[in-house]
Amino acid sequence: MKMLVAYDGSGSALNALKTAVSYAKVFKAMVFVVMSLYGEHRESKEEVEKAETQLKEAEALVKKEGVPSDGHLLVRSMAPGEDILRFAEEHHIDLIFIGIKHRSKVGKLLFGSNAQHVILNASCPVVSVR
Amino acid sequence: MKMLVAYDGSGSALNALKTAVSYAKVFKAMVFVVMSLYGEHRESKEEVEKAETQLKEAEALVKKEGVPSDGHLLVRSMAPGEDILRFAEEHHIDLIFIGIKHRSKVGKLLFGSNAQHVILNASCPVVSVR
Repeated sequence: MKMLVAYDGSGSALNALKTAVSYAKVFKAMVFVVMSLYGEHRESKEEVEKAETQLKEAEALVKKEGVPSDGHLLVRSMAPGEDILRFAEEHHIDLIFIGIKHRSKVGKLLFGSNAQHVILNASCPVVSVR
Repeated sequence: MKMLVAYDGSGSALNALKTAVSYAKVFKAMVFVVMSLYGEHRESKEEVEKAETQLKEAEALVKKEGVPSDGHLLVRSMAPGEDILRFAEEHHIDLIFIGIKHRSKVGKLLFGSNAQHVILNASCPVVSVR
């Protein structure tokens, strides 16, 4: 079984990663940790380096738990939601984990557009974690 | 481990149920199948009877697979999304499964308000299945 965590370094993404690790132990699955940047100079050099560091840390966390892991930083001019789903198709992923960040600055409940896109369009089940 | 399937007799809810059963086998979990009606005469007698039949069929499907199952038809004047989450809290559910029906009559991608409510507000992970 292949699991994918859509990672962006946020607290809820970290919770999604930890949930994936605990499920991967039961399923004896491997965990792809995937971050998506747009590229084409939309992100600064610092943002790219930060993402690279966050990805390495996430991979290390998974491996430390004895779960096979594979990290990918995608930079291919795509919105993160589409990018994640494309990767999932390419790698025959069985289960996607996403973090749900859901409060606006004024405290209103909100749904990130990338999370919505993934949930509505994934061809495999999607686990949402707060 | 306790799993909950938010069931409404739809095709995507049936897919959610089947996914829950396959996961429950791996986790050695039990599966609560939960339907929510509003009550207060909002549903016709036929609709209530149909729900009762669908619930029994769903429970039978789970038991046939050798997974412990418990069916509940909730009728307590609550919107389904809130009702499901209340039940999940009351029964200390670890993982919720929901079906995502996502096309409007004109083919537009849509997100059911109950599914959104459950995903955004659940205190445990939520598995969305198409």
